[in-house]
Amino acid sequence: MKNSKMVQYYYLGRGAISHLQELLDNKRADEEKSFVVLVIDDYFENKNILDLSYLKQQDLIIYADTREEPKTSYVDQLTNLVKTKEHLPVALVGIGGGSAMDIAKAISVLLTNPGPSEEYQGWDLVKNAPIYKIGIPTIAGTGAEFTRTAVLTGPTKKLGINSDHSVFDQVILDADLLKTVPIDQFVYTAMDCYVHNAESLLGMINDSMTIALAEKASELIEEIFLGEMDHEKLLVASSMGGLAVANSSVGICHPLSYGLSIELGLHHGYAICIAFNQLDEYYPQVKKFKEILKKYNIVLPKVINDDITDEQLDRMAEATLKNEKPLSNAFGADWKNVFSKEKVIELLKKM
Amino acid sequence: MKNSKMVQYYYLGRGAISHLQELLDNKRADEEKSFVVLVIDDYFENKNILDLSYLKQQDLIIYADTREEPKTSYVDQLTNLVKTKEHLPVALVGIGGGSAMDIAKAISVLLTNPGPSEEYQGWDLVKNAPIYKIGIPTIAGTGAEFTRTAVLTGPTKKLGINSDHSVFDQVILDADLLKTVPIDQFVYTAMDCYVHNAESLLGMINDSMTIALAEKASELIEEIFLGEMDHEKLLVASSMGGLAVANSSVGICHPLSYGLSIELGLHHGYAICIAFNQLDEYYPQVKKFKEILKKYNIVLPKVINDDITDEQLDRMAEATLKNEKPLSNAFGADWKNVFSKEKVIELLKKM
Repeated sequence: MKNSKMVQYYYLGRGAISHLQELLDNKRADEEKSFVVLVIDDYFENKNILDLSYLKQQDLIIYADTREEPKTSYVDQLTNLVKTKEHLPVALVGIGGGSAMDIAKAISVLLTNPGPSEEYQGWDLVKNAPIYKIGIPTIAGTGAEFTRTAVLTGPTKKLGINSDHSVFDQVILDADLLKTVPIDQFVYTAMDCYVHNAESLLGMINDSMTIALAEKASELIEEIFLGEMDHEKLLVASSMGGLAVANSSVGICHPLSYGLSIELGLHHGYAICIAFNQLDEYYPQVKKFKEILKKYNIVLPKVINDDITDEQLDRMAEATLKNEKPLSNAFGADWKNVFSKEKVIELLKKM
Repeated sequence: MKNSKMVQYYYLGRGAISHLQELLDNKRADEEKSFVVLVIDDYFENKNILDLSYLKQQDLIIYADTREEPKTSYVDQLTNLVKTKEHLPVALVGIGGGSAMDIAKAISVLLTNPGPSEEYQGWDLVKNAPIYKIGIPTIAGTGAEFTRTAVLTGPTKKLGINSDHSVFDQVILDADLLKTVPIDQFVYTAMDCYVHNAESLLGMINDSMTIALAEKASELIEEIFLGEMDHEKLLVASSMGGLAVANSSVGICHPLSYGLSIELGLHHGYAICIAFNQLDEYYPQVKKFKEILKKYNIVLPKVINDDITDEQLDRMAEATLKNEKPLSNAFGADWKNVFSKEKVIELLKKM
């Protein structure tokens, strides 16, 4: 039985990001030496959307390249950059989608724990208390703002730093920050939440809290995408989804998407959509998902096409089958007898 | 806009209370001097339900008298009892219903803040960080395990210590502890949650998080009481209800119930049921509530009978109308023009 850690404080509401200044200033013991690090999705660079005029000279803004999923090497490089400063920062802020938030989570842990990030991919490997951190999603659905994982892609595995130390101390949910997100992006990202809810609900590892939160988050996402778009409601659905998965695990779709992401460089939410679209034999929710794609005229391409070699397919299947925990959540302890490499390749070929 | 504080850790599951020992021992810096205080509903005294054999000699168990709602004078008396020890405790544990948990919450605050409890009834009046505290509900529905309030009855007002410092650091949700609760008690207590959800949903102060949580908690309670009883699900509904009300406020029913409780000494959940039963003109949920009463053959008595004097009625109405925040949540800023003393007395007379 797990002692579930939750985010301790959250703001919710339009304009909530205006509270960031006071949150950061409260942490500065020394006006001139205490500094904060902001990891911001580089989409916001030179865009004049975020007001950061109150930051101090000593603060460090990192506009993170999020075209690719966060790599262990990239996180190590950014951590070393922060370490060139004389002190540790008093706060770390992640502003962006799952990638920017996960980078901030990982750096906060790596600044106080020795060695490269790869050493912490797994469950409960972090020993020392991290730097205080704030998560500010600018798109909704990853749940990263509320989960205990910072998903990183290493040379061979995509696996999170799963630790209570990865949980944000403070979250700011500000619907105004979502205004410029195009609708297809919303779909790809929200489906991450929708899919991990489905994986929790149909998996073997869950409890009454997970079920209640995952059911409500799914219901909200269906309301939002098949009914009326509501950015604040989407932030809430994502938060509930993040809380839900904390006591559960993903299932079949996430491992398949990891294979696609590692080999083809596909972004997480997009890879999730490509994979989920072919999983109707496992998840009844695929039907609703197809309705959503139809409503927004989204046609997913076939990514496993004639250019993909057998070696690539093999590597994708291997990357998928490394995910013991999600697959045993989906199929039980003897998942290897049920979900063979041949089956994985058969599914991949449809994608 | 409020920075909402959540409980940082929770256990959920049958037998979860077995983790209490390690949680407490982790807090003991000195094996022989560090002590903990347990506030336990006196229902558990001499019952052999709770295993407390691991407690140390220096620990203090207070079996709290919960026949009446927690009074400011009683909380002050218990706080002074703890203060007779040489040091402050390293942890406070509340085990029981809303009363036992609220007493523990209040003492944790009063041990580090000077003056009597009455001085802290209100919003954000607590200055100093409280003693680390753990909440363990043994009945579900009050939401006290997840809220920022410790409701106390003073000489003239029933009002909570509403503060981030009232929030438990750790909650343990163990369905096994609910096994001995009789069904009518479940109804009275769960209706507290059901009613504050209704009050949040129909009030003016709420947000997307409150709405989502309150809707789901209400749905769960209807499932549990009109479908199949499930203690763990009930604990989850109560938790979600507690989280929901954090960003909202109660409405018409709670103030009326406060009048009944203060004047007639009725227990909170029971008073809530007596009041809600007469509020169909305000809350459509009263219909479902009556179905639940019917299913469990619960016939609520008429408590405002011929023995009640006009002076008593007047005092109950005054106690009701003191609740500015809930009543403006229900009726808006000009609630005094809508919800007159005559109207309150008319409603009370039906109860």
